[in-house]
Amino acid sequence: MAKTLDLKRLRWGTELVKRGFAKMQKGGVVMDVTNAEQARIAEEAGAVAVMALERVPADIRAQGGVARMSDPSVIEQIIDAVTIPVMAKCRIGHFVEAQILEDLGVDMIDESEVLTPADPFFHVWKEDFKVPFVCGARELPEAVRRIYEGAAMIRTKGEAGTGNVIEAVRHRRSITSAIAHLRLLSASELDDVATNLTKRYKPLNKSAREAMGFNGAQPKKLPAVYRNLMPDTIRKGLLKVLQEVRTLGRLPVVDFAAGGIATPADAALMMQLGNDGVFVGSGIFKSTNPAPRAKAIVEAVTHFDEPSVLAKVSKNLGEAMKGVPIEDIPAEQLLAGRGI
Amino acid sequence: MAKTLDLKRLRWGTELVKRGFAKMQKGGVVMDVTNAEQARIAEEAGAVAVMALERVPADIRAQGGVARMSDPSVIEQIIDAVTIPVMAKCRIGHFVEAQILEDLGVDMIDESEVLTPADPFFHVWKEDFKVPFVCGARELPEAVRRIYEGAAMIRTKGEAGTGNVIEAVRHRRSITSAIAHLRLLSASELDDVATNLTKRYKPLNKSAREAMGFNGAQPKKLPAVYRNLMPDTIRKGLLKVLQEVRTLGRLPVVDFAAGGIATPADAALMMQLGNDGVFVGSGIFKSTNPAPRAKAIVEAVTHFDEPSVLAKVSKNLGEAMKGVPIEDIPAEQLLAGRGI
Repeated sequence: MAKTLDLKRLRWGTELVKRGFAKMQKGGVVMDVTNAEQARIAEEAGAVAVMALERVPADIRAQGGVARMSDPSVIEQIIDAVTIPVMAKCRIGHFVEAQILEDLGVDMIDESEVLTPADPFFHVWKEDFKVPFVCGARELPEAVRRIYEGAAMIRTKGEAGTGNVIEAVRHRRSITSAIAHLRLLSASELDDVATNLTKRYKPLNKSAREAMGFNGAQPKKLPAVYRNLMPDTIRKGLLKVLQEVRTLGRLPVVDFAAGGIATPADAALMMQLGNDGVFVGSGIFKSTNPAPRAKAIVEAVTHFDEPSVLAKVSKNLGEAMKGVPIEDIPAEQLLAGRGI
Repeated sequence: MAKTLDLKRLRWGTELVKRGFAKMQKGGVVMDVTNAEQARIAEEAGAVAVMALERVPADIRAQGGVARMSDPSVIEQIIDAVTIPVMAKCRIGHFVEAQILEDLGVDMIDESEVLTPADPFFHVWKEDFKVPFVCGARELPEAVRRIYEGAAMIRTKGEAGTGNVIEAVRHRRSITSAIAHLRLLSASELDDVATNLTKRYKPLNKSAREAMGFNGAQPKKLPAVYRNLMPDTIRKGLLKVLQEVRTLGRLPVVDFAAGGIATPADAALMMQLGNDGVFVGSGIFKSTNPAPRAKAIVEAVTHFDEPSVLAKVSKNLGEAMKGVPIEDIPAEQLLAGRGI
């Protein structure tokens, strides 16, 4: 937007550089790996990056308990094992886990609903970091808030660890349709949308106000807890992102599919639905034959609109991960609703 | 506030001395221990104090039943085992357990929601004691009431025994935000808040009034059951604490994090959110490798804003406690709602 070149903004860690790194992943497959050996298999198969984890989502789901950032030594082993970028996950809102991951030198942080959320109110303020972030979204408002907070990449949440693509398709279609809708709104309608999205950043939750007995006496100048930002500042920031979305007719950052992708056909489906690339979590290393499946999914993302290639790469891959039907999961164990 | 030095107020057991003891814990980690050996591990790791218990919160939660003050002999063994201060828990409102703990010579009493509450109406009147107290709070009104009753230290309640930091973050953010809000209120609005908070100290609860048949005929001069204090006396006491909070922009006592802290990153997160120190309950001795984890958490609290130190101390700690997602706990088994 600036007419003169702002040299400061070109330094390492700017929004430009962070979004640029994310764009380099475009057309690629990011694979979950839990050790150096898996990381090498992923790199060999043509993964554009790996996600370093202690447990893949299917195991997190099966084992229960609280899921947290991985032991930094596991992440370092994976960084040492491969030449491609390494991503790692922090809990939603756990900005200290993010600081640690940044210090370890990971190439991108996934602020992920697959881990147990750490903050019931707010996500990490990702603009504070030099390392780029990817965040999940089910709907456009979530994506817009995450981009406003500084995310350089958005992915569908899907329903991780299920090997079931239906939720990723739901989120993809929902975001696409909302963007189409947004393009038809007038400036003042867009303004209303921004005002509405601002409400997620509440200065003080209602029950806390009521407990204090000063409900109704909410001062107009109250800073939001989040970064001490005034609601109007937040509204303006959200409006800027909404305007970008409307102008571009797509998210202004790279937009991947994730959550439940288990076959080359799943990966190509998400690409044909408009995604820029895919994350495969449990789908590879929970299948019977990870290396060929990993290669086949990479091929499928590259040739996503060539059915004959897709048919060819889908052959003889052994068993895909068994997976879980969404309706078999108790509502409170669904991950996608975390951290809206 | 007093312009001349009041020598009487400087004697052992005054508010000044009690709050002073609590301040000496600042920047430190208080660790739950159930025997002399654990107490020595905690001291060795650099704990600023230990909390003597029969069972850590995770076991209290798992085993169910009524949780009470520990056997005094367990507490004495722990007092004998270490040179650092020893804290112990009494049930909410169980002032006789508190008397016993004071007599045993513990350095601080935690009137704790982790034990089964003993009084449905009132907390211990902590001003009666020479030993300082710490109490849990989810929101500012709870903290203000506890300070008015004589607490020398406040901690977030969090959700003890879960290894899940989200509730501690919720309580911390809620208190911080309410304090910011309080600073913007006029004197008369502050007065309204005090009046509202007074209502928690009901002279006689509604059902008892109705049973007596004098509902509606409540005499204006009825002393509150609590300490025979007139409601207006309570209101003035609460107002004084509220005024202190507003002037200082923080609680007038030391303000720790507790409930669900399981990793060095969790401890540092709470410190960056503004806490003065942390309590770690089940997080240490429910992990696979307590001694190094205890040391790492102490380091993390000292260097809470140095990501490279946090990354270093987070490595190779073995498994953190498994933990429980909050949504898996039936509402009636949540501890934080006890004793508001």
